[in-house]
Amino acid sequence: MPKFTHHIFVCGNQRPDGHPRGCCDPTGGAELQKLFKSKLAERGLRGSVRANKAGCLDQCEHGPNVVIYPEAIWYGGVTAADVDEIIEEHIVRGRPVTRLMLPDTCINTPACAHKPRR
Amino acid sequence: MPKFTHHIFVCGNQRPDGHPRGCCDPTGGAELQKLFKSKLAERGLRGSVRANKAGCLDQCEHGPNVVIYPEAIWYGGVTAADVDEIIEEHIVRGRPVTRLMLPDTCINTPACAHKPRR
Repeated sequence: MPKFTHHIFVCGNQRPDGHPRGCCDPTGGAELQKLFKSKLAERGLRGSVRANKAGCLDQCEHGPNVVIYPEAIWYGGVTAADVDEIIEEHIVRGRPVTRLMLPDTCINTPACAHKPRR
Repeated sequence: MPKFTHHIFVCGNQRPDGHPRGCCDPTGGAELQKLFKSKLAERGLRGSVRANKAGCLDQCEHGPNVVIYPEAIWYGGVTAADVDEIIEEHIVRGRPVTRLMLPDTCINTPACAHKPRR
């Protein structure tokens, strides 16, 4: 089997309640990553696409964050309700989910015009 | 600042001593990831290149593993002594360190001709 066609990194960083930068995984249970993993397996993509736990991806104010390589598409504010759409649209059909994408102007910036954290 | 030019994921997965699949981070201290991070900062690459903690990258028998995106170059058996070379050669000069690269035939395979785990 070749390299992963898509490698999904799901931020599992934790910070204390009320931290000004927020927290991508408040429960520490990696539920979002586990959901990606189980949905990929259901879709028959286990082994070709991997959903990986990641430490802090450093785009905290836009979290929960997910980055998909090799295409380097960054998603912000990702919830469990978005996982099916990311898999079906981005992974299977090759059409990134634009409504969840972090604009390039929001990545690696201390401040940006992005919507405030929910 | 734009997206990371290189995003380095360093496996920090832990397994018990003697586990047949091995363990990429026996101390659990993420020393390898921290070393990448500090060396990148020394080299003035903080913000443009990120060294990220990752959960299990699933190439355990070849670990400690590192994968660098967006180029999807996989390294195996990486030690602290290799970090300067990966940064200088791969990241700065764009020349992946061939002696550490996992061949495509070793990635996502249960068995391969790769050297046995040290």
